Amino acid sequence: MCGIIGVENSKDAATLVAAGLMTLQHRGEESAGITISGDGNMKTFRSMGLVARLVNSDALNKHEGTAAIGHVRYTTSAKSTLINAQPFQIECIHGQVSVVHNGNITNFIKLRDMLLKKGAIFSHTSDTEVFLHLIAMSKGNFPNVVAKSMSLVEGAFSLVVLRDKTLIGARDVHGFRPLVLGKLDNSYIIASESAAVEVLGGKYIRDIAPGEIVVIENGKIVKSFFYKKSKKQSTCIFEQVYFSRPDSIMFGQTVKSARMKMGQLLARQMKGVKADLVMPVPDTGYYAALGFSRESGILFEQGFVRNHYLGRSFIKPAQNLRDLTAKLKLRPIREVVSGKEIIVIDDSIVRGTTSRRMINALKEAGAKKIHFVLSCPPIIGSCYYGIDTPTKNHLIAANQATDQIRKYLGVETLTFLNLHNMVKACRGEKDNVFCTGCFTGKYPTKISKDTYKEGC
Amino acid sequence: MCGIIGVENSKDAATLVAAGLMTLQHRGEESAGITISGDGNMKTFRSMGLVARLVNSDALNKHEGTAAIGHVRYTTSAKSTLINAQPFQIECIHGQVSVVHNGNITNFIKLRDMLLKKGAIFSHTSDTEVFLHLIAMSKGNFPNVVAKSMSLVEGAFSLVVLRDKTLIGARDVHGFRPLVLGKLDNSYIIASESAAVEVLGGKYIRDIAPGEIVVIENGKIVKSFFYKKSKKQSTCIFEQVYFSRPDSIMFGQTVKSARMKMGQLLARQMKGVKADLVMPVPDTGYYAALGFSRESGILFEQGFVRNHYLGRSFIKPAQNLRDLTAKLKLRPIREVVSGKEIIVIDDSIVRGTTSRRMINALKEAGAKKIHFVLSCPPIIGSCYYGIDTPTKNHLIAANQATDQIRKYLGVETLTFLNLHNMVKACRGEKDNVFCTGCFTGKYPTKISKDTYKEGC
Amino acid sequence: MCGIIGVENSKDAATLVAAGLMTLQHRGEESAGITISGDGNMKTFRSMGLVARLVNSDALNKHEGTAAIGHVRYTTSAKSTLINAQPFQIECIHGQVSVVHNGNITNFIKLRDMLLKKGAIFSHTSDTEVFLHLIAMSKGNFPNVVAKSMSLVEGAFSLVVLRDKTLIGARDVHGFRPLVLGKLDNSYIIASESAAVEVLGGKYIRDIAPGEIVVIENGKIVKSFFYKKSKKQSTCIFEQVYFSRPDSIMFGQTVKSARMKMGQLLARQMKGVKADLVMPVPDTGYYAALGFSRESGILFEQGFVRNHYLGRSFIKPAQNLRDLTAKLKLRPIREVVSGKEIIVIDDSIVRGTTSRRMINALKEAGAKKIHFVLSCPPIIGSCYYGIDTPTKNHLIAANQATDQIRKYLGVETLTFLNLHNMVKACRGEKDNVFCTGCFTGKYPTKISKDTYKEGC
Amino acid sequence: MCGIIGVENSKDAATLVAAGLMTLQHRGEESAGITISGDGNMKTFRSMGLVARLVNSDALNKHEGTAAIGHVRYTTSAKSTLINAQPFQIECIHGQVSVVHNGNITNFIKLRDMLLKKGAIFSHTSDTEVFLHLIAMSKGNFPNVVAKSMSLVEGAFSLVVLRDKTLIGARDVHGFRPLVLGKLDNSYIIASESAAVEVLGGKYIRDIAPGEIVVIENGKIVKSFFYKKSKKQSTCIFEQVYFSRPDSIMFGQTVKSARMKMGQLLARQMKGVKADLVMPVPDTGYYAALGFSRESGILFEQGFVRNHYLGRSFIKPAQNLRDLTAKLKLRPIREVVSGKEIIVIDDSIVRGTTSRRMINALKEAGAKKIHFVLSCPPIIGSCYYGIDTPTKNHLIAANQATDQIRKYLGVETLTFLNLHNMVKACRGEKDNVFCTGCFTGKYPTKISKDTYKEGC
Repeated sequence: MCGIIGVENSKDAATLVAAGLMTLQHRGEESAGITISGDGNMKTFRSMGLVARLVNSDALNKHEGTAAIGHVRYTTSAKSTLINAQPFQIECIHGQVSVVHNGNITNFIKLRDMLLKKGAIFSHTSDTEVFLHLIAMSKGNFPNVVAKSMSLVEGAFSLVVLRDKTLIGARDVHGFRPLVLGKLDNSYIIASESAAVEVLGGKYIRDIAPGEIVVIENGKIVKSFFYKKSKKQSTCIFEQVYFSRPDSIMFGQTVKSARMKMGQLLARQMKGVKADLVMPVPDTGYYAALGFSRESGILFEQGFVRNHYLGRSFIKPAQNLRDLTAKLKLRPIREVVSGKEIIVIDDSIVRGTTSRRMINALKEAGAKKIHFVLSCPPIIGSCYYGIDTPTKNHLIAANQATDQIRKYLGVETLTFLNLHNMVKACRGEKDNVFCTGCFTGKYPTKISKDTYKEGC
Repeated sequence: MCGIIGVENSKDAATLVAAGLMTLQHRGEESAGITISGDGNMKTFRSMGLVARLVNSDALNKHEGTAAIGHVRYTTSAKSTLINAQPFQIECIHGQVSVVHNGNITNFIKLRDMLLKKGAIFSHTSDTEVFLHLIAMSKGNFPNVVAKSMSLVEGAFSLVVLRDKTLIGARDVHGFRPLVLGKLDNSYIIASESAAVEVLGGKYIRDIAPGEIVVIENGKIVKSFFYKKSKKQSTCIFEQVYFSRPDSIMFGQTVKSARMKMGQLLARQMKGVKADLVMPVPDTGYYAALGFSRESGILFEQGFVRNHYLGRSFIKPAQNLRDLTAKLKLRPIREVVSGKEIIVIDDSIVRGTTSRRMINALKEAGAKKIHFVLSCPPIIGSCYYGIDTPTKNHLIAANQATDQIRKYLGVETLTFLNLHNMVKACRGEKDNVFCTGCFTGKYPTKISKDTYKEGC
Repeated sequence: MCGIIGVENSKDAATLVAAGLMTLQHRGEESAGITISGDGNMKTFRSMGLVARLVNSDALNKHEGTAAIGHVRYTTSAKSTLINAQPFQIECIHGQVSVVHNGNITNFIKLRDMLLKKGAIFSHTSDTEVFLHLIAMSKGNFPNVVAKSMSLVEGAFSLVVLRDKTLIGARDVHGFRPLVLGKLDNSYIIASESAAVEVLGGKYIRDIAPGEIVVIENGKIVKSFFYKKSKKQSTCIFEQVYFSRPDSIMFGQTVKSARMKMGQLLARQMKGVKADLVMPVPDTGYYAALGFSRESGILFEQGFVRNHYLGRSFIKPAQNLRDLTAKLKLRPIREVVSGKEIIVIDDSIVRGTTSRRMINALKEAGAKKIHFVLSCPPIIGSCYYGIDTPTKNHLIAANQATDQIRKYLGVETLTFLNLHNMVKACRGEKDNVFCTGCFTGKYPTKISKDTYKEGC
Repeated sequence: MCGIIGVENSKDAATLVAAGLMTLQHRGEESAGITISGDGNMKTFRSMGLVARLVNSDALNKHEGTAAIGHVRYTTSAKSTLINAQPFQIECIHGQVSVVHNGNITNFIKLRDMLLKKGAIFSHTSDTEVFLHLIAMSKGNFPNVVAKSMSLVEGAFSLVVLRDKTLIGARDVHGFRPLVLGKLDNSYIIASESAAVEVLGGKYIRDIAPGEIVVIENGKIVKSFFYKKSKKQSTCIFEQVYFSRPDSIMFGQTVKSARMKMGQLLARQMKGVKADLVMPVPDTGYYAALGFSRESGILFEQGFVRNHYLGRSFIKPAQNLRDLTAKLKLRPIREVVSGKEIIVIDDSIVRGTTSRRMINALKEAGAKKIHFVLSCPPIIGSCYYGIDTPTKNHLIAANQATDQIRKYLGVETLTFLNLHNMVKACRGEKDNVFCTGCFTGKYPTKISKDTYKEGC
């Protein structure tokens, strides 16, 4: 998971990119970076931690330019180092080029081997670097070079590329990860989510299509074409379940709407359930719980207090406070839950340990009966397209039946939103608009032992 | 505004205090500090910024002890420096003593002058230091010394004092700022809010009473007495309106309950209002909006997305992103508000500028009509008891009539919770339980030109 | 050991103090600090490490003023913390006062107990704080207050005090630590060493006399008087042997001259010695070796290469490179020493371990015979007046006879400059001008079990 | 100017490299870095500033390995950034490879263009990166690959390359920059200077020859061969004049010896000169002055005090203390120079400004007559082989006759060591052993407009 953004044709490009990255901060807290291009010279600034830290660096504020791209990174700890913070700025046959990437290149190992054989040197330990090599090794018109490079890459990649004053947005042929086009005054904006466009005062225009490459210069779309024709869009449905901001627009509706529908459909699945109240696990369960409440007529309550100083739920393990951490992050209000039969709505179960700790906390707070409800189906497979899910053997639903999980968690009932309903809530008109690989085990691309899965 | 906590008789005292401070982080993000006492030796660790930063310091984790106190500080920028970060640890006639303080000493100037005349030296620019001098200049039994010192101090002060293994909690005679007593295994905990006790796994026992001093040693309350008899409790009602965590218990109910009642009573005040939906300004307006919705039957919605990476609402002004900051923090979801007549519930209006920007954002997002509702009365006076409200001339309600403010904000209607209802929601049995000085101009203590108002 | 300086009546006061501290950096590398006074307001900036680090802080460069004082600190690791970095700036009955101190208060424990009883609070763990309390507890004319305070303090103290635009320099009645008066344009400068005056372009006027207090305002000496009449000056002779810069003037000559004479007199003591060359242990042995060579006619050589990046010789122990450290600092040139009979001149032997390692290195480099020569007598007692010598049981010469030491070091002969000659080289007209306590065990003040010895 | 070192076959490889870098710190203070190789995995640690700072990083101390290479960097401010700090570690067809480089690739622009055309991407702004590309683009046996790569590179380069446990030292065919081979127990050491070998306890074996590649594995030289036959060695003579440590061995003698001979020969050049004393500009002029004194019989004195806290003479410009900086670094002792006719020996004159300031300081201190003597000829050309001399128009001797310079400096006489004598002092048997391009304008390689000159 990462967030990417690019802005061109604006004196405030760097500031806008910084603000956009803050809006996308939920997509990655580990590192942040910005490349600024102006007067024929590019400069890249990167730092570990939040965007706020990067923005405070004097250097950044001194460099002027009219185009900029940015990146926030969420990654596995193994690769947690400044050297892997993006953007990656290089010099190649095409001059100075900078790239930001969200996704995962499934044929990374193969591509890297091929590139190494051709004499490439790898300075990072991140799959993103292959784009740079493919671009550098290809000659001709720059957009075509980008297209040719992309045609060799398999897997998930939304890209923003900056070269002098040319801003390019591109999306893999499956459209795994989101990428949108927006406009602000005389500038175009390309970003992971529409919210990042709108916060800046810009207007969301449309999604960049799977396989599409959009080339922007001087406030104009100078070219838009497809590096490959998409046979079947496979956008990650988990973006709507969990990752994206509720105010981002996806498939013609806000993520907020999709989540409310998930709740509504869950209520229908559970028709007849009796409970004193329905409450979300904040923040992602929020709208699903509201939707559930409206559909079922069961009282909506907010029975958890979330500590927002401690980062997003599966980001950053604690240090010397490991045991207290769960409680610090999320605490049930006794007064709300004590003696009650409650419906608790969360987005998903991964390993099961966090859910169990949370259920236990509810019981300690006096909850009488708990119905645990998830706004997606059981996760039975790992993600190969950019989400950092653990391997199959750590996924509780890949290894235990629903009733076993129910017992493990210690709840009255355990209900998952079914696949059909999830897709429906997300406005999938046909099944094939979304990638639901982690729920079905049916992946849009061939998965083998060599498939790389640690992208950005 | 500050948060304070103390734990004794536990090998994990420092860890518990650190976790407690994280729970109290909303009370101050500027600096954090911990004093650890063990084996006859105390050590204090302080740093600017969040508790997380302090906790990562190696030094802290190496120092052992069985008692600890901690502090998070919110302060005016003028005094923003490490030298004013608490705890203040000193050596005096009573040995090593460390103090943390939440409140504001109204007679600070007078006391300081008196102390200077007696030969005291002031190393900080914070009012808290006077406690140390008063203690150091008084002889005899330590709890009595603390009592004697407190009897000279006017204004607001909740204190936690650590001396060797003795932990003392004390509260001014008006009980302006909260302070609670809790128990965890063989340890007592004293903290600003009950939530900080409960997150640690402890049990909230009771509030420390106005004027009370509680002395704890070896897991026992060895003494509890009053340094002065309270004539009239005057606890800050704004703690329930705005500052405290929703899961903290105040006056026998959670703050969450108080806020829901505020919403309910507001709905009654506005009986007959028509609207498509009622929505909170997150996070404080949340429960009031829920209460309003239940009472009025108007649909509850969450139409704002809040960016939690950017800190609490009136903490930390931005830097090179000043204009974007408001939007970054709080963004309306167009889909929710567009074309609608909406009721928006916030906690309070101070200067009016933030509210106006927020109302404008709602209009830009297409809101047709806006009813702006506040869960407290107009703020017409500054606070002298520890809350950093601006001076009277910056308070919009002190200078403009309600209808003027309504026009300035550009809303259909503007409704304040009336004083009676606010007090009722907060379970004030009689008027005199709360300090409502900032709403009424009637302060529980004499206010003059010399009254100091920049405490902690 | 510490270095102190003050400048008044100059727009560049802070810059001059910073540059002066750089010149005094050899007197302490652990922390540095500056107080600037201007427009009725003082501000203090302190940081761990070298002056260069402090000087780079933006804050320092933004604060304007026309008077400033500064401090560099060398201290024992136990007290190595920012809280003990000077200047100590406080507010007291006399307003804002800031103090820097070089020396050691021998009756610190007694004074502190007395002050604690009077109600003082101690925020630091350094003896310097007593001056502030004594000043704060005394009323009347400020210079008299300083004088009265000093009259209660025993031991070594050179002080620079700043109050508004008044700069005061003061020296204990024994004159243990140096303090000089200088002039630059319309400003007076007070500093530990004359070199710090002269580097700034100023003129060294004279030493501040033992017991003298000099009060400066607006570029004028407004008062100069004695807080106590000195019976017997006892200036630390080790300043000339080791600590001071060679270009500083002491007792009417440069330290360089004193050291050359030490070498000359050593040559006379060793009359008839035969050797191929005489070489110094850099940097302190340098001039003594040159003097020795001139007197004896033995060839002067520089056979050691000193690595100046690693700090002064007994400052900063190493970390994971402990064993290599000695070699890293000082390496003999094989070509110079191999097969030779050499005279090696160092300033002094303390524990003996460093000397032994250095002698071993010479042998490894092929030195045939080594005559080890010290430009002071055997150190047999600890210092109570501001030099961080170890306790008696760690002083090799306090526990072993010269010949034993010679064997331990493994040298042909071992020669100490005798007391008479040392005093003579330093221009002691009578024996009693200098404190030679560490060489004779005869201290100018009464030493008891309670004598404090960890000053600054 | 940079310093490089490599150690293999030792559990302490990283520590030894760190200590070696400290010994080479005079070759660059801007950044430092170490690559450690162990268990088939390499890791690189780099930081701005001194080696001491790098060594304190926890990460470095946790990574284990048996081979390591290191680098200290001195560079022009334009390229002063962490991204250019070496070692450069990459992955290529040959696996993980790390390289450190001292020198300057004169055909960098051409090579880079060629490499860009072949599809290479450049991540740094330093010439060193071309080695990595050339290596990565060449197949076959690794040492041969290194050889083939080197054969394409023109200019100055001493390299240390690490690949798994193979350590390679290589030197350009002209032998511009030094590189030596040493042995310590079962390990080989390759370093810029012999002193770095010996400080670690190792034995200097020999110089790596111009054009030679030495391949070391498991404590054995497994291969040693020439990538190209050297027609004419052209080692930088300025290493002996200025850069190298006095205890390093070059051309069969220590640098110290070479410098003493320079002084001796200068005395012969100036036969008959009368003066009261001869004194060096520390630290480089030291031995030349000593040699001069011995030859001439004129008294040797050390009349300057150098402040070693402020870095090497043309490293690090000052900040807000620009004017004071010169005086802070080097101060004449009035007592030594006042009223005297003095001979002052420095290594060289570059721009002339520093020399002039120093001469002025001597005059202010009362020097009556000054004879300024340089231990090398006038510098009339820039260096293209790794020394950061300014362009020709900034070199005073390239633009003014000796007598003009003499007048500009304001000295009695101005004497340069003549070329013949300089070469003789440095043991050049024939003229062609050394590069003397900056003194003669005759460069060993063709110099054109495209010649790159900002290497490392």
